[in-house]
Amino acid sequence: MKKFIDENFLLTNPTAEKLYHEYAKQMSVIDYHCHLPQQQIAEDKNFENLTQIWLYGDHYKWRAMRTNGVEEKYCTGNASDEEKFLKWAETVPYTLRNPLYHWTHLELQRYFDVHEILNPSSAKKIYDECSAKLKTKEYSVKNILRKMNVALVCTTDDPADDLLMHQQIKNDGFEIPILPAFRPDAAMNVDDVANFNNYVARIEKAADKHITSLKDYMDALKSRHDFFHENGCSVSDHGLEQVYAEDFTQAEVENIFNKIRSGKTLELSERLKFKSAMMLWFAQWDHEKGWVQQYHLGALRNNNSRMLSKLGPDTGWDSIGDFSQGRALSTFLNKLDTTDQLAKTILYNLNPADNELMATMIGNFNDGSVAGKVQWGSAWWFLDQKDGMIKQMNALSNMGLLSKFVGMLTDSRSFLSFPRHEYFRRLLCNLMGTEMENGELPNDINWIGKIIQDICYFNARNYFGWHQLQGK
Amino acid sequence: MKKFIDENFLLTNPTAEKLYHEYAKQMSVIDYHCHLPQQQIAEDKNFENLTQIWLYGDHYKWRAMRTNGVEEKYCTGNASDEEKFLKWAETVPYTLRNPLYHWTHLELQRYFDVHEILNPSSAKKIYDECSAKLKTKEYSVKNILRKMNVALVCTTDDPADDLLMHQQIKNDGFEIPILPAFRPDAAMNVDDVANFNNYVARIEKAADKHITSLKDYMDALKSRHDFFHENGCSVSDHGLEQVYAEDFTQAEVENIFNKIRSGKTLELSERLKFKSAMMLWFAQWDHEKGWVQQYHLGALRNNNSRMLSKLGPDTGWDSIGDFSQGRALSTFLNKLDTTDQLAKTILYNLNPADNELMATMIGNFNDGSVAGKVQWGSAWWFLDQKDGMIKQMNALSNMGLLSKFVGMLTDSRSFLSFPRHEYFRRLLCNLMGTEMENGELPNDINWIGKIIQDICYFNARNYFGWHQLQGK
Amino acid sequence: MKKFIDENFLLTNPTAEKLYHEYAKQMSVIDYHCHLPQQQIAEDKNFENLTQIWLYGDHYKWRAMRTNGVEEKYCTGNASDEEKFLKWAETVPYTLRNPLYHWTHLELQRYFDVHEILNPSSAKKIYDECSAKLKTKEYSVKNILRKMNVALVCTTDDPADDLLMHQQIKNDGFEIPILPAFRPDAAMNVDDVANFNNYVARIEKAADKHITSLKDYMDALKSRHDFFHENGCSVSDHGLEQVYAEDFTQAEVENIFNKIRSGKTLELSERLKFKSAMMLWFAQWDHEKGWVQQYHLGALRNNNSRMLSKLGPDTGWDSIGDFSQGRALSTFLNKLDTTDQLAKTILYNLNPADNELMATMIGNFNDGSVAGKVQWGSAWWFLDQKDGMIKQMNALSNMGLLSKFVGMLTDSRSFLSFPRHEYFRRLLCNLMGTEMENGELPNDINWIGKIIQDICYFNARNYFGWHQLQGK
Repeated sequence: MKKFIDENFLLTNPTAEKLYHEYAKQMSVIDYHCHLPQQQIAEDKNFENLTQIWLYGDHYKWRAMRTNGVEEKYCTGNASDEEKFLKWAETVPYTLRNPLYHWTHLELQRYFDVHEILNPSSAKKIYDECSAKLKTKEYSVKNILRKMNVALVCTTDDPADDLLMHQQIKNDGFEIPILPAFRPDAAMNVDDVANFNNYVARIEKAADKHITSLKDYMDALKSRHDFFHENGCSVSDHGLEQVYAEDFTQAEVENIFNKIRSGKTLELSERLKFKSAMMLWFAQWDHEKGWVQQYHLGALRNNNSRMLSKLGPDTGWDSIGDFSQGRALSTFLNKLDTTDQLAKTILYNLNPADNELMATMIGNFNDGSVAGKVQWGSAWWFLDQKDGMIKQMNALSNMGLLSKFVGMLTDSRSFLSFPRHEYFRRLLCNLMGTEMENGELPNDINWIGKIIQDICYFNARNYFGWHQLQGK
Repeated sequence: MKKFIDENFLLTNPTAEKLYHEYAKQMSVIDYHCHLPQQQIAEDKNFENLTQIWLYGDHYKWRAMRTNGVEEKYCTGNASDEEKFLKWAETVPYTLRNPLYHWTHLELQRYFDVHEILNPSSAKKIYDECSAKLKTKEYSVKNILRKMNVALVCTTDDPADDLLMHQQIKNDGFEIPILPAFRPDAAMNVDDVANFNNYVARIEKAADKHITSLKDYMDALKSRHDFFHENGCSVSDHGLEQVYAEDFTQAEVENIFNKIRSGKTLELSERLKFKSAMMLWFAQWDHEKGWVQQYHLGALRNNNSRMLSKLGPDTGWDSIGDFSQGRALSTFLNKLDTTDQLAKTILYNLNPADNELMATMIGNFNDGSVAGKVQWGSAWWFLDQKDGMIKQMNALSNMGLLSKFVGMLTDSRSFLSFPRHEYFRRLLCNLMGTEMENGELPNDINWIGKIIQDICYFNARNYFGWHQLQGK
Repeated sequence: MKKFIDENFLLTNPTAEKLYHEYAKQMSVIDYHCHLPQQQIAEDKNFENLTQIWLYGDHYKWRAMRTNGVEEKYCTGNASDEEKFLKWAETVPYTLRNPLYHWTHLELQRYFDVHEILNPSSAKKIYDECSAKLKTKEYSVKNILRKMNVALVCTTDDPADDLLMHQQIKNDGFEIPILPAFRPDAAMNVDDVANFNNYVARIEKAADKHITSLKDYMDALKSRHDFFHENGCSVSDHGLEQVYAEDFTQAEVENIFNKIRSGKTLELSERLKFKSAMMLWFAQWDHEKGWVQQYHLGALRNNNSRMLSKLGPDTGWDSIGDFSQGRALSTFLNKLDTTDQLAKTILYNLNPADNELMATMIGNFNDGSVAGKVQWGSAWWFLDQKDGMIKQMNALSNMGLLSKFVGMLTDSRSFLSFPRHEYFRRLLCNLMGTEMENGELPNDINWIGKIIQDICYFNARNYFGWHQLQGK
């Protein structure tokens, strides 16, 4: 009987243990895609209590609590922080086999040195102990990033964002680069006329440019892309149901833009053309500047209208869709490749039924120009758990080169999520170690240890071009 | 070398064994969805021989026999019962690794205390021995249900059914509730004009009401829904390729109804609107009465026209389809949720490529009002086997709360299928026990044993509201 | 620590070892679908070096090299054979966990008795040693087939092919039957007018018949079908995104044929009708002659236009698609079944998300007339690896009869690919052996050994009707 989450958690044999403890564990974390709030880093915030750092904004936990029959008041409502924590603690024992169960206890161990199981009996003590620690300087946000051996963070930002917080963080001399990422989802979303026109107004203001035509709009967005670049950004990101790759002409897109600017709702075919054009143009900019572009595909969002209107988006009412992905993705990447404008690209799928499609799609555009130029991203969101990560790594291994994988990212809104990198590394080491033990891989620990360090750190550093980062 | 199907079958470690033998095994069976013939229960029938109870109506076995090259005469044809059994016994050794192989030997053990392997050499002896037992009172249908520790059964019934057999069973004082379930598939299936109009005639008769309009039709169906409710029904069930969630107006649906009543074939768009309306209205009734509604989605049925015309439906010519499921399912559930008319709901998918879609779809409508309000149902039909059940439980664990799962059902037409509950329980205990042993779950057997008992029995009892059932 | 690829590679327990070494290993190989070049067999060619036999034409290896950042010059370009080999050897260590890594070392062991790991240090020595061996008579193509215990090979041939090489191989008295297979993909592909009309010209020439109508075209193709039959062919093959099963009339298809012959581009609906007609007619011919028809479904091909125009098709720019498969496949097979014209059929899917659909589709048309009449083919192309094969065998076991499976084929262009049969057999034996050890299968090694020999050899021999082949 192995102890719950001991030092050899998820490691089932001595070779896996050696790979983790001697090769993987010490590597720094490059968190190249997450949703950390830059303002809290700029402020070097201390959280008041465990609820604020752990439960505020965490829709994974809310979903679990609601499924467990907990009232909304204790999730996003006006219960006190302590009440909310106690309701979460009641739910934790029911989350067994969910990644929340492992995350919860890993995070208590790694951040707070708490090794108890969280449940209603231990809740109060844990809450008080961790909350007290959180108030100390050791637990300021910057110190948390240092404690977790983070080498670099990319946040996720709208083109209209002023990046003032990023500038402040830099000016304050924080040694860990906190870089913006360009996420223009709102800039191409013409499904709702009023929302889109409001968004154009935001871009007008951010770019300080009056917009009367498609050309103005694209110029303004391009100036934001330039501005992000000047502020250290080298990564874009897109959250889409599926890629759009319809044919279009410049004139068509201009007309569509004018139509929506005049307040008229677009036909489906117009929306698709507009989105297709925008995706292509954004991608061309990314290529010009040598950025990495990321596509998160396949979420079916905002399914619950009642709760969306009460709580807004990203509050736990999204799920996995079954959108068609293959043809359009191929067409889109091919259009860019044909004119030699395909940037380095990472594809993420939310439906694991698309795993093998993605694992083989990337090979269509890996032409030898850059090692691992088109990547299949790590298991994402609902798939960010043991089975999901193992399936992603196995499919990538079987249909591509695991050795060139840029590896893990948190995609999280919380400063307590960095142990997800540890979790990933343990699984990676266990896959490799197990196959060394059973004769499916050679017993060459130096080579395989090197590949593991590549996947944990060096591949990402080299791929994104962050060569300034200190080794490991 | 472990003995074939010994007492620790499917249990790979001591903790799993303990969980099964000390926690799971003793729990009663709530079979909340099956196709048992109520008449045979009412009659407390004794079967004449093993073929009649085991092979009649079992399209799983027929499919295996046909794939093995056995003539139809021995499946559904006019061969003698003993000849049919011998052909089945010839096929059994070729079914190794198919669930039929495990089911066959589990059923021989649990019902008949026969521990031999069924094959051509043992066939005659086993046939005679089991057939002799079947003729004794101990093997009457009611005694079989008692022997298998069944606490409650829901059959599957058409709204036109008179439920006389259910009434008789109740009046006879049978201590195990045998409840009807409302399955209105035929009531909304307007693909075939003649069939639908025949069905309307059946409802006219059952409801004793002349039907000249959509309103009449819905009133008649509603009176059947009420009648089922009065007869103890609290569960509906739907077998559909996919959910229909088109927009419609009352007037449109009235016109569509009138069109088909005049003998005209409907356009595709009309069929979809009609089905969408009916699904919504049925769901509203279910909510009004506090029922649980079930949706079995994704079967591609009646693929073989030649055999369909010879043998009728449900004779082994169905398979798994690849219908689009996400968007319509979300729209349908959301429509109901928006007006606060979403009943407790169980979704079953036949294509495992939709597993993760389903596992996350349920979370969109679990709003804390009822623990586990929207459920993802147990692995169904072709997926009702070791791999299928493990995949379902793993995906549910990773993306929802396994702890709130209402667990297993047989979905069977046979009184010999109850060991499928045992099979499920062994797999569940093994998943939990293995993770306790390897440090992925805490070594807290009381808590995990309790969760297992919940999944085996208490969750279903509480979810369906059958609080009258005696504990365990 | 087990040695890398030792004699018990992939065998995790003593029963699996016994099954492999005593039952599976000795069986001859029936390679009923591959792309071996018949000319090289006719010539009994000796390859000059390891690059020519191993890297020429191998788009699996090219994809891996490109992903590893190797320039095209070393894949398909004008680098020397030795340079190409050294670049491949550089890439090999980065292919760990990809099937290439296992294939590479298995092939070095089995063909060349080389037991070293291929990497840059060992590359030169291995290249020289193997190239020297390849020049000896022992390594002529025919001797390689003998060495690998091959009993029969089916190549893949266009209807316009003259089969002269097949005739020569036969006339030269080669004891291993090398049979053609009829692959009429080009004959039904009307997506490109010019290509199709060129193809008609090829058929005119091959059939020595002037073609002025659809009837002429079909007569000419039929005469090629007859000609293939006379030359020992009893297998057809089709590579398609999906099956086409639209309704059509003879007159419609005649008009469509005339339209394209007049140089006009077809509408989508016309293309679908034409393809649907051709598929049906080809299938009827297959049934008339008692052939086996094979359908390879689901590849998304030629995604990279730039590389397609440089290198042509089949050079590593294909991937897995997500085409809809269920309904059309059912309709197509049913149309044939309805008129009793359904030949023995093997379905292969490229997207594993369709595994269970395929595993159950076959059961819809297995009517007892022939054991295993409709087969689900072995894991193909990107799926031809450990996980892919295990998933296919598990789904087939769970939803059909593994025991009736016709088993493995290489689908390869290379004479060095026969160890893929060994790989398959080891996995098969391990699945069975593991379940015997853990009590999920009875400890009846004679029976299970027999089933394994069936799957390795006898099922294919009987299914394809190659009864002339000597036992085992």
